[in-house]
This record gives sequence, C-alpha cells and structure tokens, in this order.
Amino acid sequence: MTDTVLASWRDGTAKTAILDFVTRATRQGPDFVPAGDRIATFDNDGTLWVEQPLPPQFDFVFRHWAEEVKADPSLAGRQPYKALIEKDPSFLHGVATQDPQVIESLLKAFARSWAGSTPAEFDAQVREWLATVKQPKLGVLYQDLVYQPMLELFDLLKANGFRVFVCSGGGRDFMRVFAEETWGINKENIIGSAAEYTYTDGGMVRGEQLLGTLDLGPGKPEHIFARTGRLPVFAGGNADVDIEMLSAARFALLINHDDAEREFAYTAAAEASLAKAGELGWTVVSMKDDWSTLYRNREQ
Amino acid sequence: MTDTVLASWRDGTAKTAILDFVTRATRQGPDFVPAGDRIATFDNDGTLWVEQPLPPQFDFVFRHWAEEVKADPSLAGRQPYKALIEKDPSFLHGVATQDPQVIESLLKAFARSWAGSTPAEFDAQVREWLATVKQPKLGVLYQDLVYQPMLELFDLLKANGFRVFVCSGGGRDFMRVFAEETWGINKENIIGSAAEYTYTDGGMVRGEQLLGTLDLGPGKPEHIFARTGRLPVFAGGNADVDIEMLSAARFALLINHDDAEREFAYTAAAEASLAKAGELGWTVVSMKDDWSTLYRNREQ
Repeated sequence: MTDTVLASWRDGTAKTAILDFVTRATRQGPDFVPAGDRIATFDNDGTLWVEQPLPPQFDFVFRHWAEEVKADPSLAGRQPYKALIEKDPSFLHGVATQDPQVIESLLKAFARSWAGSTPAEFDAQVREWLATVKQPKLGVLYQDLVYQPMLELFDLLKANGFRVFVCSGGGRDFMRVFAEETWGINKENIIGSAAEYTYTDGGMVRGEQLLGTLDLGPGKPEHIFARTGRLPVFAGGNADVDIEMLSAARFALLINHDDAEREFAYTAAAEASLAKAGELGWTVVSMKDDWSTLYRNREQ
Repeated sequence: MTDTVLASWRDGTAKTAILDFVTRATRQGPDFVPAGDRIATFDNDGTLWVEQPLPPQFDFVFRHWAEEVKADPSLAGRQPYKALIEKDPSFLHGVATQDPQVIESLLKAFARSWAGSTPAEFDAQVREWLATVKQPKLGVLYQDLVYQPMLELFDLLKANGFRVFVCSGGGRDFMRVFAEETWGINKENIIGSAAEYTYTDGGMVRGEQLLGTLDLGPGKPEHIFARTGRLPVFAGGNADVDIEMLSAARFALLINHDDAEREFAYTAAAEASLAKAGELGWTVVSMKDDWSTLYRNREQ
C-alpha cells in the first residue's frame, strides 16, 4: 500500500487492522472474500460527519417545522412542535442519542410534513439548506464536517472491489441529495429510513407511511439484506443503534468520539457499542489519535 | 461499434434504435445522459427468459405446494392448492397473463409457505430446482431459456456506464439466487416482489408480509425509485404490467413474442403495451426477425 492510501490515518492499530483485513479479504487464503460478497456498510451521523449537538438532518427538519408553525400557529400546541418550541430537554436528549422511540415519532411527523411532495421539491429544499445553513457550534456548512479519513476508507474499499453503502437511521431521500457529490456513492447505494412513494401521473409522490422498518438497530441489517441480498462483510458505525449491523459483519469499525478539540468528546448512546467492541474484538477508532486530518476540504 | 456488439441482433430498426440511443446518451449533445442517471431496468419473465406456459417461478412454487399437499392432504381443499389440483383454467390464465389479483393471492400464499425460513434454506431449494427441473414444452433447464440477445444488450449498456437492474413482478429472492451467474448482475441490482425479513439471532428470517407494493404495473416505478432514487432512462419489458416502467423511461424496448418456431407466439396480456408502443414510439423487438440467436449457450 502506498502513502496515498488512508493518508489521513496515523499509523496505529486501527489503520493496521483495516489494511490487514483488506489484504486478507482480497488474497487467496482462509479469509478470502469472493467478489460478490464484498459489501461494506456505514452509518452516517457520527460515522461520516458530525452528529453533535444534533444529527444534521434534524436541523433541516426543525427549521422546516418552524416555518410550518409560523404559517399555522395552532401547531405550536402539538407534538413534536411543542417539545421543540419549549426545548424539552428529555426530548432533545432522545434526539441526540437517537433513541428509537423519539426518532420514530419524529420520522412520522417528518413523513407527514412532506407527504404529497415530489422528489424535485424535497431535493431543492435540502440543497438550499446545505448551501446556506452553518453548523451552530462549528460555524461551517454541514458538508464541510464530513470526515476525510472515512472518504479515504471508501476509496480503499472501492479500489479492492467492495461496493460501499451508507446505511443510516436518518432519511434515505435526504442523504441521496448529496451522496454522489459528497461521498462519491451512487444514490442506489444509500439505505435509510424512507417513506413509501406512489407512481402518479408519470412521477413519484411521497406518501405518509414508512417503507418497511425504521433503519436503526435490527432495522439496519434488515434494510441491508432487503437492499443487497447479503449481510455486510465490513461495517462502520459509532453508536448503540449500530450494534446489530456491526455484529453482522466480519470486520467492524467503531468510531469513538474522543476529540473535544476538533469536534466533540462523548460516549452517550455509545456505551453498549464500546462494550461490545471489547467483547467481540471490533476495531475502535480514536478520532483524536488515529486521524491526522478530521474534515474534508481543510488543512488542520 | 464492432461486430461483437449485439452480435445476436440482426440489422434492423430495433438494433439501430438501441445503438443510436446509446451513442446519443453518451456523447455531449441534447440527449446526453449524465453518468449518475444511467439506470437501465428490465422485466424478467418474457423479457429475459421464456414465460410460457407459465413464468418459471410458478413451476418452482407449484412443485413445492404439491409437496405440502402430500405432507398435509387437508390443504387440497384450500386455495390456491385447490385451483392447482383442479387445473382451474381461469386461475391458470390469470397466472399466465400475470393478472395482478391472481399474482397477489399467489404471492401471499408463497410468502406463507416460506415464512420462518432462512435465505440459505430457500436458496438451496431454488438451486436444486434450477439444476434438475426441465421446462415442460422445451425440454431443457430453465436457465438455458435465457435470451442471449438481452445478455448482449446488458453488456452494451454496462460498457457505456449504465447500471443494469432487473425489475420483476416475481420474487426478488428467487431471482437473486441465479442473478450473478446467469445475468452477470449483482444481487443488489435485483428488484422484485419480496417478503419482509427480520434480523433474529444474527441472521435473517423471512416473514409473511410483503415489503412495500407488489412489483407490477405502477409498483415497478415505485420499487425502482425506492431502490435507486431515480426513474430509469432505459427500460425493457414485454407485457401490460410493464407499461408504467416503460412509460417512465426515456427509451423503451418492448419484446414481442412472435416466434412460434423457436419459442411461443402470443400477445395475451401484451395487447395494451403493444398499442402503447405505437402511440409513444417505443422500440418493438420482433423475436423472430430481430434475433438471430435466441437462447444463451446454444447454436441455432
């Protein structure tokens, strides 16, 4: 492997473990992975970009809901609008920690907000948000908070015949807007929670119901199997809602947010996954120690 | 284009239209298709292999149901077992013409038959059937009834940056068993009607419910959009249940079964699609005139 491979990864056990796995997977021997089985799946929030203080999609959604309340003040007394206006701490904690029940209630409201819309309408709203809204604590556009080392990991895996998928509890259609330009991954390799659409008058119209399960916890391998017909060989995540996906993979990478200086240091909603990593021999990435560069498009 | 491109296609309007579309799609100009949008989708039964007297998957399923009735004779009085045992002509006509109501009732029974099974169990049953059961009228294995010209069309499209998907009303998991070896298409590019699975004890277990809609008629663009985030640029089909998928594409190819000598000649369940082809300028393929070789692995 040359110096351009995993260039932002410092030498250490994580980098060595990744390179060793990829070498063994692609070379004849007991750990060889046939080409068809080379599926790699990655969580998004906290794995591919910053998820504190809230996963970025919630910023997009909450701004939209604020506009809805402005247009119809009667909504202010209803959930989830009320909890947001009152900044209900237990509600916000549930969002931040991706508590499945809170996320499910939010995704239902989210589905209702865009029911009847077309993909072009939704895409334009997401593009406007991406181009204009800055992350509140770090003061830059969200797309500038994508982790450069993970993009290099995608490059390494693709160069070795892996098909890379993103598998997030967040919205499939939200991620698809920027997947190709930001991650270099085709829309069809984006897996996430999603509404059902109907084909109407020659185009797609969004409905209110979720298609299948919420893509969190056991929903992750369920969505991955439905999409690919396989379970992943390589998986990356950062939180307890990734445990099932990571457990299903032969090689599991767990991102540990221990970099208070360049990002955030926290283990909330990741305690169980950190414990599992020790138990099952997953490779834990220390953002502080293992990554020399954190964000794409920037020198650090 | 060299002589090895579409080698089993005779010169004629269909071959010319395909080559012209691919050239315009990949060359700068008004009909250029950006790389990301190059999605091509194909029906399976009657488009990629023989579908008479019944789509092959029904042979697989009906043999399984005959075994179920043998094991539990009380099933003989229940539908769909009863209709099969009595060879009810209206029922069999509904199967042959892919009548959505008949297919839906069958897929529900199909879902029940394999509920609780694992992918490995189902795959082994399909492999056994593929390796041993011959098509009743043509006397060869079903995989020898795959149309060679369509495999050459896949090659042409892939060589020009298209991602090729199969989108069938039939079972997603059934097709995935042979997709890679037969079509050269990864499992993740197979779209079809499918059961929901749950992740249980580290593996997938099939449930009884369908995931989303039945993949027929409007269900085809719905499944394609859910899977890929786009509608197809190029689509191929052969029947009325393909109309919505073909209408959604910029270039539509309709296979006309007019080859009584090498296969079957019929327009049943394709009348509306043939009329649409004339109306909307779709490219109609005469199997008799446009294809010099019909089946893969064979000289004719």
